[in-house]
Amino acid sequence: MGAASTTPSPVGLHRVVAPVGVLPQAADRLDASPELWPDEVRVSVERLNLDAASYRQLHAKHHGDGDAIRAEVLEIVGNRGKMHNPVTGSGGMLIGTVAEVGPASPLGLTVGDRIATLVSLTLTPLQLTDALASWDGRSEQVPAAGHAILFGRSIVAVLPDDLPAELSLAVLDVCGAPALTARVVRQYVERGTPPTVAVIGGGGKSGSLSLAAARRSGAKHTIGVVPAPAEAELLTRAGLADAVVLADARDPVALAAAVGTPADVTVVCVDVPGCEGGAILATANGGTVIFFSMATSFSAAALGAEGLAADVTMLVGNGYVPGHAEYAMDLLRTDQGVAGLFGARLAAEH
Amino acid sequence: MGAASTTPSPVGLHRVVAPVGVLPQAADRLDASPELWPDEVRVSVERLNLDAASYRQLHAKHHGDGDAIRAEVLEIVGNRGKMHNPVTGSGGMLIGTVAEVGPASPLGLTVGDRIATLVSLTLTPLQLTDALASWDGRSEQVPAAGHAILFGRSIVAVLPDDLPAELSLAVLDVCGAPALTARVVRQYVERGTPPTVAVIGGGGKSGSLSLAAARRSGAKHTIGVVPAPAEAELLTRAGLADAVVLADARDPVALAAAVGTPADVTVVCVDVPGCEGGAILATANGGTVIFFSMATSFSAAALGAEGLAADVTMLVGNGYVPGHAEYAMDLLRTDQGVAGLFGARLAAEH
Repeated sequence: MGAASTTPSPVGLHRVVAPVGVLPQAADRLDASPELWPDEVRVSVERLNLDAASYRQLHAKHHGDGDAIRAEVLEIVGNRGKMHNPVTGSGGMLIGTVAEVGPASPLGLTVGDRIATLVSLTLTPLQLTDALASWDGRSEQVPAAGHAILFGRSIVAVLPDDLPAELSLAVLDVCGAPALTARVVRQYVERGTPPTVAVIGGGGKSGSLSLAAARRSGAKHTIGVVPAPAEAELLTRAGLADAVVLADARDPVALAAAVGTPADVTVVCVDVPGCEGGAILATANGGTVIFFSMATSFSAAALGAEGLAADVTMLVGNGYVPGHAEYAMDLLRTDQGVAGLFGARLAAEH
Repeated sequence: MGAASTTPSPVGLHRVVAPVGVLPQAADRLDASPELWPDEVRVSVERLNLDAASYRQLHAKHHGDGDAIRAEVLEIVGNRGKMHNPVTGSGGMLIGTVAEVGPASPLGLTVGDRIATLVSLTLTPLQLTDALASWDGRSEQVPAAGHAILFGRSIVAVLPDDLPAELSLAVLDVCGAPALTARVVRQYVERGTPPTVAVIGGGGKSGSLSLAAARRSGAKHTIGVVPAPAEAELLTRAGLADAVVLADARDPVALAAAVGTPADVTVVCVDVPGCEGGAILATANGGTVIFFSMATSFSAAALGAEGLAADVTMLVGNGYVPGHAEYAMDLLRTDQGVAGLFGARLAAEH
């Protein structure tokens, strides 16, 4: 049993060592001991994927010295019981194999399943046992041995055997976007008003999946907005949108003009600041804006809608929707356009 | 006709002088000339209420020298055609009397109506004609003469004759919160599942109105969360909530424990950072969190929900909902608890 607490919690409060009472993500230190509470799962770690911002910070701090970077990652995990970069506040995800399943775990996992965690390493108890000997410290991809703990409410995806792990991970990384887009579109369809859906950044990972999800969920018309002609050509060829238009999402007037008749649902998938006004202006009265970009400013969205007297429902894109991983993987498998875009993207990265 | 453009726009793009193409709020300079476009309204200004952050900055910069503060406000309005503090980025609101209504104005105003603007001064064309001679520069309340322009999509409230303007303004300032809370609660009621509603910061202006709105819209049970015993006593005496509980909203575990059985709808009305995790944890699976606090962090909300595997719908509290001003004023007039709390608050400020 973990030592930090005597009552278990599905969000892992019993693993918080310090400060007492905060959530695991906010904790300085977690108890990463391998013994399971009844609703937990232990995973044998195969690889950590460090968050890009976290690796960049470590790389800069140590001037690219791989040994120094490795030493600091080991120190962080040793001290904190999790790979939670104290400077960037970010973590990453991990791949591994299920080693033991607690009798009360609700995650539906079986020993031997190869999985990826879909919650951040910043809240995942982790112990390393190989001193990261197989890692040269020169990449975000960290081969590793040791174990990690999943809580009752952790989110995890079983990796399919028949797809490259890299491809699965690229899809799983953004799987909240298509799932929430599908849910919102279905709500419109159920009310008898199939919506027009505009996806800002429709050529990217979350954007292309969101376009596919919107069409499959019954959207009347889909519009992909992209910033550059080359991307427009790729998206047009993929056939994921009924219309592909060019606009700088930071220019509200240009964006609204490119979308034309305001959309019922606008999905923001571009990671640049300053897209709130344009997204609101491109959305019909009574419509919905879903913000998936982490560059979204809460106050810019709230004050922007007020300043435009825009009666729009604005959703914070929650990275978790039940079934989101399965849904996104299904889109990858069954939608030629999605598969083509993701394949091209991975090829370009190599 | 305004000189900046030749085609009118309900959001005032035709009044933008520089830079061309941005929304009025983002503009450096607006055309504040008094001639109306067909859908505009001209208001004779009576008083500006400067945004607190803006006035504080001016006061500090000029070491409280009222003449210097007045001179800078005149300079800003003269240069920008709006009272948009370039340092704080904020504005305020104004009170005035309708002087002329364009033939195509959709705002439903009549010449002589005494009104308050509910959109920011940062996007309201303004010309001053009295050199602010009646203002000593020592308060955010600025007696003023001149005119302001309302666009087709501006938001404005007619001030009732029978209430002190101060009281009306205090309510109008936060009127988006009760209106959106009412809308969300009604959606639950229409689906046959009247919700439990928890309002974090239930003793404040937006919080107390949201509690009253939730009950009136059919909430099954309402919970007001406040940080201090004195506030709990006031809220209990006002009778606005079925339960009043004490918790620090920044402590997720304490907040969730205080709320007890997770709420179907959680409304965040406290202007302190770090309340996202607690609000999510205090909300039932499938529930809704409405963030009204400008201190809300978009990424903390998005990553927090994901980290907790919380299937909650998270709404950015839009300051505009059609009919919001009338609805809030009606709550003030008809709900003894609301009237009592607002009366006590105003009395305490004097």
